[in-house]
Amino acid sequence: MLNKDLVLGIDIGGTNTAFGLVDRAGVPVHSGTMPTGAGDTPEIFIERLSQAIDRLISTFPFSFRLLGIGIGVPNAHHVRGTVEKSVNLNWGESVNLVSLVRRYYDIPVSITNDASAAALGEMYFGKARDLKNFIVVTLGTGLGAGIVVDGSLLYGASGFAGELGHTVVDPQGRTCACGKRGCLETYVSATGLVRTAVELLSQQNAASQLREADRDQISSKLIFELALEGDNLALDAFDRTACILGMKLADAVAHLSPEVIFLAGGLSSAGEILLRPVRRYMNDFLFRVYRGTVTVSLSGLNATTGMVVGAAALIWQKLEAEKIYSAGGEIL
Amino acid sequence: MLNKDLVLGIDIGGTNTAFGLVDRAGVPVHSGTMPTGAGDTPEIFIERLSQAIDRLISTFPFSFRLLGIGIGVPNAHHVRGTVEKSVNLNWGESVNLVSLVRRYYDIPVSITNDASAAALGEMYFGKARDLKNFIVVTLGTGLGAGIVVDGSLLYGASGFAGELGHTVVDPQGRTCACGKRGCLETYVSATGLVRTAVELLSQQNAASQLREADRDQISSKLIFELALEGDNLALDAFDRTACILGMKLADAVAHLSPEVIFLAGGLSSAGEILLRPVRRYMNDFLFRVYRGTVTVSLSGLNATTGMVVGAAALIWQKLEAEKIYSAGGEIL
Repeated sequence: MLNKDLVLGIDIGGTNTAFGLVDRAGVPVHSGTMPTGAGDTPEIFIERLSQAIDRLISTFPFSFRLLGIGIGVPNAHHVRGTVEKSVNLNWGESVNLVSLVRRYYDIPVSITNDASAAALGEMYFGKARDLKNFIVVTLGTGLGAGIVVDGSLLYGASGFAGELGHTVVDPQGRTCACGKRGCLETYVSATGLVRTAVELLSQQNAASQLREADRDQISSKLIFELALEGDNLALDAFDRTACILGMKLADAVAHLSPEVIFLAGGLSSAGEILLRPVRRYMNDFLFRVYRGTVTVSLSGLNATTGMVVGAAALIWQKLEAEKIYSAGGEIL
Repeated sequence: MLNKDLVLGIDIGGTNTAFGLVDRAGVPVHSGTMPTGAGDTPEIFIERLSQAIDRLISTFPFSFRLLGIGIGVPNAHHVRGTVEKSVNLNWGESVNLVSLVRRYYDIPVSITNDASAAALGEMYFGKARDLKNFIVVTLGTGLGAGIVVDGSLLYGASGFAGELGHTVVDPQGRTCACGKRGCLETYVSATGLVRTAVELLSQQNAASQLREADRDQISSKLIFELALEGDNLALDAFDRTACILGMKLADAVAHLSPEVIFLAGGLSSAGEILLRPVRRYMNDFLFRVYRGTVTVSLSGLNATTGMVVGAAALIWQKLEAEKIYSAGGEIL
C-alpha cells in the first residue's frame, strides 16, 4: 500500500464505541473498539478515546495522511457540534463533542446522529448510491432513522429530525428510557424484541426453548437462533415485532415517500426472518398511492463496520463539498 | 384598477370546487364556486368547470391578462399532471387533469395535492414567508398535509408524500373510505369529529344538547357551537380529537422536525377550542429534543379562499422559477 489519504470514522454507541481508518472507497482498513463507559463524563470518555485512536494509528503499518474525523452518535446536532439530551449516555443537557475532540486533533471534525451517519454511508458506499429519497432504520439497543430527501440528509428546524424510535405505538404502552410511554423502540429494537419474548413467555403456555433460559440470558441473538430452529414463541416474537415495525414504516412512507427503506444495525442481521413479515405488514398498512413505490431492503453496509464507514463519509462529503477532494479520490 | 396580471386558482374538493382570479399579492379579486359532482367523469367535470370559469372571467369588470391556471386537488401528481386513485372522486386509476384543462385554455396549467397548495399559499401569502421547514395540516372532510423541507414542497419518490390522513391510529379502528382501518382522518377531520360525537352519545349517559339533534343533523359546526356553550359531550369530542391529533403531530415532528405546524381547513375555524388541547397533547407526546423547537398555529390564510390562493401560488412560483415574472411582480 502506497502513501494514502484516510479519514477516521467513530461510532459512539450506548455500550461500545467503534472506530476505524477508512479510505475513499469506504473500506475500513484498520479498526478498533472500546467500551463507551456510559457513566463517564464526556471529558474522560474523549481522553480514553484519543488514547485508543493513537494506539490504532501507531499500529497501522503504512504511511498515510489523516484528513479528518467523522463521528456518529445519538442526539448529535450536526451544525452546533453538540450532543444534546442524550438518553443512553450520561452527558447531560449539552456537550460540544467537536471542540473536545479538536483539543487532541487539529484536523476537520464533523459530527452527526448515528442513524444519519448510517444513511450517509449507504449513500456513499452502500446500496443508495443512485437514490435521492430513502431512509435507513438502525435497529440496535434503540431504533434510529437517517432520512435522505432529494439527495440530502434531513435535519429539520431543530437539527434532530428522524427520531422515529420515539414515535408513539401505544400511549399506555411500555415505559421508555426517554421518559415517555409506548415509544416504537421499546417494541422494535434488540431490547424491544427481548421484552416481547419475555411478555409472550408469561402470556402463553406454548412450549419453547426460551423457557429453559434464565431471564437475563434471553438475548435477541438467542431468540433469532431459536426462530431459525422453528421455535414458535421465538417466531411469534419476531412476527409481533415485524407487525409494529411494518405499521410504523407505512406511517414513515406517508410522511416521506422514500424509494427504499433500509434496515441496518444488529437486529437487521436476522435477515429474512424479520424482513419478510415486515414487508407484508407494511404493505397491508400502506395507503394505496404508495403501494409498489417503496421497497424494504437490508443495508448494503456491514452490520458491524457500517456505522464507522458512515461516520467517515461525513468527512469525505465535507472535503468534496469544499472542493478539497474530488469525488474521484484526488486532492484538488 | 389598471390592466392587471392575474392567475386562476382552483381548489377541487370532494363536495365543492372553488376558483378565483388571484393577483400577485395573493388577493382573490374575483371568485366563484360550483358543486364538484363526485359521480361525474373527469371530462364532464372539466367541461362544467370551464363554463363556470368563462362566466367568472366574463363578469370580471376590469381588463386583465390571465397568466396561468393552478389547481389543488387530492391525490394529484405534480410532475405527471395526473389525479391518481382518488378516494373521494370517482375518477378511476389515473386521469391527466392538466391535459384536460389545456383543451380549453392554452396557458400554463399546474397541479398539486390540495394540502401542498395550502402549504405553498402559506409560504407565499400567509405566515410561512420566512420559514424553511413547516407543515400545513388541512382539516376538512379528510385530513391532508403539505410539507415544506428546506424551502421546497416535499413530494418524495412517489410524488405523493404527505398523506398523513392515512397514517395509522388504531389497526382495529374505524373503517376508512380508502379501504384501510383506523386511519387518522377517520378520527381527526370534520367527519371524524362527528363520528366521535356520535360514539360518545352511545357510550355516555351525560346530558348533552347533541341528544336533541337528529343523527344526520350532527355536524362539526353544531358540535363546535355547543362546545362554545360549554356542552360537556361536545367538549369531550373536541378533546379526544385533539389528543389523537396531538399524538400524530408529535410523530410528524419526529419525522420532519418542522418549525411550525399550521392548521387549516374548515375544522381549524374552531380555533382555540381545538388548538389549545392539541398543543398540550402534542407537547406530552414530543420526544425531549423537540420540545420548544416547534409551535402549532392557525393558518394565516382565509379558511374559505386559502386553498384557491395556494393553488394560484403554483403559477406565481412557476413564473418566477422560469424568470418570466419577478418576485416584485413585473414581467421580465
